[in-house]
Amino acid sequence: MSEFRCELVKTVDDSYNIEIGRNLEEKLIGDIKSGMFGNIKNFAVITDTNVLKLYGAKICDMLIDEGYHAHLFAIQAGELSKTRETKGFVEDSMLGSGLRRDCMVVAVGGGVVSDLAGFVAGTFGRGVPFVIYSTTLLSAADASIGGKVAVDTALATNQIGMFNQPKKVYIDIASWITLPEREIRSGLAETIKHACIGDKDFFEYLEKNIERVFTFDFDVCEHVAECNCKIKYNVVMRDEREQDLRSVLNLGHSVGRALETASGYMMLHGEAVAIGLVAQMRLGERYGYISHENVQRVEDLLKKVGLPTRIPENVRKELIIDKLYTDKKVRNGKLRFVFQKEIGAMMCFDGCYTKEVEENEVAAVITQL
Amino acid sequence: MSEFRCELVKTVDDSYNIEIGRNLEEKLIGDIKSGMFGNIKNFAVITDTNVLKLYGAKICDMLIDEGYHAHLFAIQAGELSKTRETKGFVEDSMLGSGLRRDCMVVAVGGGVVSDLAGFVAGTFGRGVPFVIYSTTLLSAADASIGGKVAVDTALATNQIGMFNQPKKVYIDIASWITLPEREIRSGLAETIKHACIGDKDFFEYLEKNIERVFTFDFDVCEHVAECNCKIKYNVVMRDEREQDLRSVLNLGHSVGRALETASGYMMLHGEAVAIGLVAQMRLGERYGYISHENVQRVEDLLKKVGLPTRIPENVRKELIIDKLYTDKKVRNGKLRFVFQKEIGAMMCFDGCYTKEVEENEVAAVITQL
Repeated sequence: MSEFRCELVKTVDDSYNIEIGRNLEEKLIGDIKSGMFGNIKNFAVITDTNVLKLYGAKICDMLIDEGYHAHLFAIQAGELSKTRETKGFVEDSMLGSGLRRDCMVVAVGGGVVSDLAGFVAGTFGRGVPFVIYSTTLLSAADASIGGKVAVDTALATNQIGMFNQPKKVYIDIASWITLPEREIRSGLAETIKHACIGDKDFFEYLEKNIERVFTFDFDVCEHVAECNCKIKYNVVMRDEREQDLRSVLNLGHSVGRALETASGYMMLHGEAVAIGLVAQMRLGERYGYISHENVQRVEDLLKKVGLPTRIPENVRKELIIDKLYTDKKVRNGKLRFVFQKEIGAMMCFDGCYTKEVEENEVAAVITQL
Repeated sequence: MSEFRCELVKTVDDSYNIEIGRNLEEKLIGDIKSGMFGNIKNFAVITDTNVLKLYGAKICDMLIDEGYHAHLFAIQAGELSKTRETKGFVEDSMLGSGLRRDCMVVAVGGGVVSDLAGFVAGTFGRGVPFVIYSTTLLSAADASIGGKVAVDTALATNQIGMFNQPKKVYIDIASWITLPEREIRSGLAETIKHACIGDKDFFEYLEKNIERVFTFDFDVCEHVAECNCKIKYNVVMRDEREQDLRSVLNLGHSVGRALETASGYMMLHGEAVAIGLVAQMRLGERYGYISHENVQRVEDLLKKVGLPTRIPENVRKELIIDKLYTDKKVRNGKLRFVFQKEIGAMMCFDGCYTKEVEENEVAAVITQL
């Protein structure tokens, strides 16, 4: 019997910049031309059928005009495309176009596109670089920081995926004008979640200014994008030191994700998260973690934006309970939630941000929602 | 326009041990019980239909006997199982068994099992730990070091995957007795490749002792396993400093992989690599990189083991040429090879181990093989 040691200690630098502005296509092409991402000649521009005409095709054409080999791949818009099958289809299309591991992926779109394209980039040729060109408020808030990429399966959302950091993120605020109002509302659910988790001042700013996002006030939109990035970044960074802190980003997502699945993805992610935020606060109020006044303030802000705060009648509540058990926070078959303490602060239980909860307590909250 | 910096610099320790011995099942269970891999209670034992009865079920039962939740997943034995579809099937089965991201994957089998199970582990719940219990000579040589995990697609082998290091590898030499002789020969192709790349003494040892692997001489088997690990480890480690060195492990794999695909996976990996080694040497001889005498010595050793050194008549040579372009070393549409200089040393071209070759030169070699 003999033992052999493989020493594999290394320093990894996954740092990257997020640029927030309007009409950043030229900036992206300029960065590529300057060699910021290496000497790359081949590009896969991955987008969806909504963003294709507005941004995807344009960016691909601009790359071709600059003499690069660029191929355009458009997936069907919507959460239903975040599957292993779509991932496989994009991979086969890329291989069929002659792309190999010396290419770069440019994800142009919202969270579904960057989750899928980031996952494709992470496993294509065992990993190629990628950048995100974000065209939705939701992805500005959610998909730009943290490096989480994934697909959904019939049994659970986001359970198959990896951590894969982009080389750069471009948040094009001008693109928000092209979004349906429902999408903007959905994106604001994550924004409100971020304020609840870590920034009381930002929450108050939202109470005063959130309507100005719908009129595309540039200063407000830029401030919203920046605060979202900062709050999420602080959590993700501190998580390296504080075990488990990252789970606070899951605020509202226990019930939110379950609801999203149980609705057959008929609800937008942010809509489901809005209801999930309410469910979490009400459960927190039952357990005595948060005051009724704070619960009311968050519900009021959600309503102000026009987000749902009650479970739609066509979603079976028993199915939501069932789906709760597919949540990634489940440990040893027990449900776990994260809770707000007040606006801008989270509950911490003996150094742990997730707390085991009883199914009947959650069910009681869901029944009344 | 504003820019926001995400600082993500960290030190990663992926070090692990490889234990070489006989009947290491008890050792594996002991390591798990000692908490070597953390406080894990849930296990997915992934194996194949060949290894299931011999090792997979036994290890799963031992875990259950110790009070763990362990589930057994057996894929169809053979390279044809290394697909996205099999990966998805295993993932769904794991989710269906209630496994979540607090589980660990135990890969029990050869290279196909560890490639697939390591890839499953890398993306299940965005990554769970895994160990390899290696039951073939080929995986002792090939799959235990380097962290490369992947699946094949219709268009190319190993193009969809990632780097994912196991927490420990167990090389059970006793398992080699259960292998068909053809599998042992196939495994020895990678062994001979390793000797060609980096260890002249080991090559000479093989010339004298290689037949004793077939009689399961323990000292010879242990020495073979150890040398394989050491040579591959040295290459993988030095690659951190020397750009591109790792590609030397691809010796014989340009034609080998193409042949494997072109044969519809009717050839074993090692059989295809053996012919690939010959192709590479003959091409190297044409270019004046290696002496005819050295080419002859390697061909003789391959023949001594009973490995093929000529392309089977039922494989279309034009198809092999086509498939060469799916090789991961291809850059800007041009074929690239790595070459031996002598036995135990590789050609290096201006600091680069891969060298562009002309299709007609490769075709000339393949035509004569």
